[in-house]
Amino acid sequence: MGSFRNRFLRVNLSNSKFSEESLSEATVHDYIGGRGFGVKLLYDDLKPHTDPYDEKNELVFLSGPLAGTNAQSFSRLQVFFKSPLTGTYFKSAAGGFWAPELKFAGFDGVIITGKAEKPVYLWIHDGKYELRDASYLWGLDCDDTHTLIREELHDNDIRVACIGPAGENRVKYAGIFTDRRAAGRGGAGAVMGDKNLKAIACRGTSKVEAADREAFTAAVKEQITAYRNNPQFASFSKTGTQIAEFTNVLGMYPTKNFREGVLPKWQEIEGASYTKLRVRKSGCHACMVHCGNIVRMYTGRYAGTWTDGPEYETTWAFTGPMRKADIGLTIAADKLCDDLGLDTISAGSTIGFAYELFEKGIITKKDTGGITLKYGDSTPVMDLLKQIAYRQGFGDLLAEGSVEAARRIGQGTEKYAIAVKGLELPAYDPRGAKAHGLNFLTSNIGADHNTGYAGQEVFGSPFPFAVDRFAVARKGELTKWNQDLTALFETGILCSFIPSMGLLSEETFGKLLAASTGIKDFADVAYLWKVGEKIFNLERMFNVREGFTNKDDVISERLTTETMPSGPSKGQVFEADELVKDYYKVRGWSSKGIPTPAKLKELSLEFTIK
Amino acid sequence: MGSFRNRFLRVNLSNSKFSEESLSEATVHDYIGGRGFGVKLLYDDLKPHTDPYDEKNELVFLSGPLAGTNAQSFSRLQVFFKSPLTGTYFKSAAGGFWAPELKFAGFDGVIITGKAEKPVYLWIHDGKYELRDASYLWGLDCDDTHTLIREELHDNDIRVACIGPAGENRVKYAGIFTDRRAAGRGGAGAVMGDKNLKAIACRGTSKVEAADREAFTAAVKEQITAYRNNPQFASFSKTGTQIAEFTNVLGMYPTKNFREGVLPKWQEIEGASYTKLRVRKSGCHACMVHCGNIVRMYTGRYAGTWTDGPEYETTWAFTGPMRKADIGLTIAADKLCDDLGLDTISAGSTIGFAYELFEKGIITKKDTGGITLKYGDSTPVMDLLKQIAYRQGFGDLLAEGSVEAARRIGQGTEKYAIAVKGLELPAYDPRGAKAHGLNFLTSNIGADHNTGYAGQEVFGSPFPFAVDRFAVARKGELTKWNQDLTALFETGILCSFIPSMGLLSEETFGKLLAASTGIKDFADVAYLWKVGEKIFNLERMFNVREGFTNKDDVISERLTTETMPSGPSKGQVFEADELVKDYYKVRGWSSKGIPTPAKLKELSLEFTIK
Repeated sequence: MGSFRNRFLRVNLSNSKFSEESLSEATVHDYIGGRGFGVKLLYDDLKPHTDPYDEKNELVFLSGPLAGTNAQSFSRLQVFFKSPLTGTYFKSAAGGFWAPELKFAGFDGVIITGKAEKPVYLWIHDGKYELRDASYLWGLDCDDTHTLIREELHDNDIRVACIGPAGENRVKYAGIFTDRRAAGRGGAGAVMGDKNLKAIACRGTSKVEAADREAFTAAVKEQITAYRNNPQFASFSKTGTQIAEFTNVLGMYPTKNFREGVLPKWQEIEGASYTKLRVRKSGCHACMVHCGNIVRMYTGRYAGTWTDGPEYETTWAFTGPMRKADIGLTIAADKLCDDLGLDTISAGSTIGFAYELFEKGIITKKDTGGITLKYGDSTPVMDLLKQIAYRQGFGDLLAEGSVEAARRIGQGTEKYAIAVKGLELPAYDPRGAKAHGLNFLTSNIGADHNTGYAGQEVFGSPFPFAVDRFAVARKGELTKWNQDLTALFETGILCSFIPSMGLLSEETFGKLLAASTGIKDFADVAYLWKVGEKIFNLERMFNVREGFTNKDDVISERLTTETMPSGPSKGQVFEADELVKDYYKVRGWSSKGIPTPAKLKELSLEFTIK
Repeated sequence: MGSFRNRFLRVNLSNSKFSEESLSEATVHDYIGGRGFGVKLLYDDLKPHTDPYDEKNELVFLSGPLAGTNAQSFSRLQVFFKSPLTGTYFKSAAGGFWAPELKFAGFDGVIITGKAEKPVYLWIHDGKYELRDASYLWGLDCDDTHTLIREELHDNDIRVACIGPAGENRVKYAGIFTDRRAAGRGGAGAVMGDKNLKAIACRGTSKVEAADREAFTAAVKEQITAYRNNPQFASFSKTGTQIAEFTNVLGMYPTKNFREGVLPKWQEIEGASYTKLRVRKSGCHACMVHCGNIVRMYTGRYAGTWTDGPEYETTWAFTGPMRKADIGLTIAADKLCDDLGLDTISAGSTIGFAYELFEKGIITKKDTGGITLKYGDSTPVMDLLKQIAYRQGFGDLLAEGSVEAARRIGQGTEKYAIAVKGLELPAYDPRGAKAHGLNFLTSNIGADHNTGYAGQEVFGSPFPFAVDRFAVARKGELTKWNQDLTALFETGILCSFIPSMGLLSEETFGKLLAASTGIKDFADVAYLWKVGEKIFNLERMFNVREGFTNKDDVISERLTTETMPSGPSKGQVFEADELVKDYYKVRGWSSKGIPTPAKLKELSLEFTIK
């Protein structure tokens, strides 16, 4: 079957039982791979209303069908689970080298169920697997966990996906980390910690071969040529995801908990500022973009600190919410989150929520354990991150995420929790970028930018059509297009930055898939689009089954009622209702936000109809 | 030439010039390798009175002739230089994997001279070499330096020998670290830092072949059988160097800056206590002993801290001087020293010197920057280590070592600096172990236990003859024997623990050397002893040339005039004068401690006679 072996390892941690599984030929055909398989597995395996911390919740680790080949930018690990932060279906992805290594070790994916009695880690190597004692790793940070597993198994090339103290302590936005890359969002790490699973380590020596080698080589060449011919490639290779210049110039850089859209002195944290601190580029398996940057500080409070990153979102998470452009703090906090195992977006955003409450006097030093939270001073962030990861003092509350924290605090603080379905917003103020906001509202995992990134509103991309970022018109259509395209590409777990830059066409992607797997239908672009839409709708149906409706496609009233007070997006509000209604229509969903039976039949999702 | 290729790389950092060198056949024959080559190179290359921080001071990194083969326990790197701490010739060794890797890369040794203008590191790989920019590594700890060099060069199996912040800041007892093993003593790291050399990284794929394979294989089998048949092997494999039980029971565990010989509650830091915290054994290339222990704390102030170690000496350095048996602190401080690049013995001992001064009111919180040093409380150690490595505040003074610190403080504090030739004493009170003390007095690098370890006084070994540890008689003879035997084995840079346990005979060692190098004389045990003695005398002549005499073979009057107040060594003093006189006689040295011309001629060291 070429680069996809259809070999999945299922591990029940409750009784240490292993089984090897294959998907049916029909499932493979109908869902292609990656996110397609992820949602199908989760939909089929989980009973409705399974508690995220029930032993029946699953944690599905998937590589894509192209991982481990020399096709570009398909190195990603994608993890699927029911989220303790959002209560929804969830997917979270990380680049690096883990997913290709899983393939080299002989597997396409690993499905974890149950809970171990004591901390364990899973060791997969060249077709073999075992659970090993992880008591000695429990409590250690992600970096040390990598080091000690490699030492225990005497192989420095082992790839490790693990949790840090945040995951162990079930911080609701704890992630899974591999070589300082994170499947950060939604609490995958908390579920893993709840299962007493510290890590999955992989090593393998088998080759991943394409079904049709000649056609595959031609398709890879086509992909590489397309990258080279696209001016975005060089620019993205150079500065990576650091786009604070764009978002500040457009007045959509969320500042002071989404009360302003421009960060003072943002030039100090834009791409060029990081480039000055760059030690070297870093990258993922089989990706010529090398968008990563290892940077370090040479001066100031954080001198000597280095990190692999931060990405744009992390930069924002530790500047915008605190209204302070301190590049050193972004580097130190990024490293700390990598060590502790925390999602930077939710961590920074939840801390920013606390900043606002402190300003308003709703919380005081009595609540924070003596820490003063004051706009313009981001230095408390380091201590707060540690408190969150270890659930100490004030950190124990923040570890719940902003929405749950607001619920517990009460006093009308819910409106200061800027999130959708419990997932904190990333670094785009919806008032300055309406399709971004609409995607946040309707993404099946809450406010995630990578589920349907509207590059059109930030970089002026004219595909599929040019847009006015403030306009409401056609944003439903655009958002559906962005979301389905993402789902389509995520059948191969393509890095989400690639479609944002228009580096890969669906045609070339289809050729890669078909040549590598030997399944001809995958070369049909219309088919790919259909599968993309199908995936998105099946995710939605997972959430519908959990009780989610249009009532959950909502956002803080701050964004829908308060106009942006200043800057290039001044005067704008986010027209949530209007946008969502238009979107449902385009999607073929009811006014309650539920896919109609007709739509479900069209997508061969009849089995979801109760 | 078999396992010794006679290929040395000389690098002048002042002008970035490289040259490859070979030793003459006569030198190879007369000095065998390792420490023999080290002292010969240093004696020949350095003009008398070269300042340790002069660009002409050399830093010689050597592997032994057996490194990289499967002969056991020869993995060590040995570094040679004129020491900024002692002003003497110096040698310092570290186990691990660096030296074998240097061999795999094609070289037997690296000779560093000059000073680089900006931070650099040396990269040696499969016969090639280059200097690379290390600006981005400057200021980073040893662990991160390993990580980032491996990342830069895209190879996780690269071996790195580097300095931490302590070496950069020329702390006089900064070491060179490789995979958490340290060539710790004497300030090799300070010299490396002074040369702006952050690291030497190695990687190679060549095989190290024996000249006579069959004979070599037989000799290795003989060695392995001898290990297996020796009961010390199993015991040492189990608990490693942790011998606090022995030294406390014997009342020679230096406590309160050598004012007591038994640590209260020493059971909390003996071998069995570490075994309880053990994560796993660790070891060096081609050594079946695996004496290392990776341990971690699960509870208390240092919960979550782990380290590879500590060794017995480190355990002592962070307990005895502070009179506090806190195992967590030993683990945390060991890790911190590995990160910062500090010699644990001199660090702990110098801090202990400060404890006594604080008790006596000679220094106060005004001097220490507010830190209270009080026996029974070792918690200030962590902060002090950081201050030392960065030469901040009070740490700047302690970074000079106890002898120089005492000189600067004055007020008669010299007697509280327990050192020989500036090198702080390790964990044996000379009053309870006279041959240990005599070795400290006469070792060519100051008070180093590994230069002539008197296992006879601790473990009751009857070779070459049984001794009374309190007796003066025959301690000159014993010390010469221990010292020459160590020098003999260090021609192969055998791990110093092996002769301490009597695991390897000179006969088997000779067979290994002869079969691997193809030089038959090396199989002659009498010849090996002669070379051992020769090395020791040439080192002495290096120091004599620097102006050292019997006046420098002295120790603090505390040990020679104050009797041990309590414990199993109660009532003992250290009879330094008597012991040294006897020793000189046995050595064939003058009463001034200078080898006689006759002795030098006997050892073919006429060239040292002025």
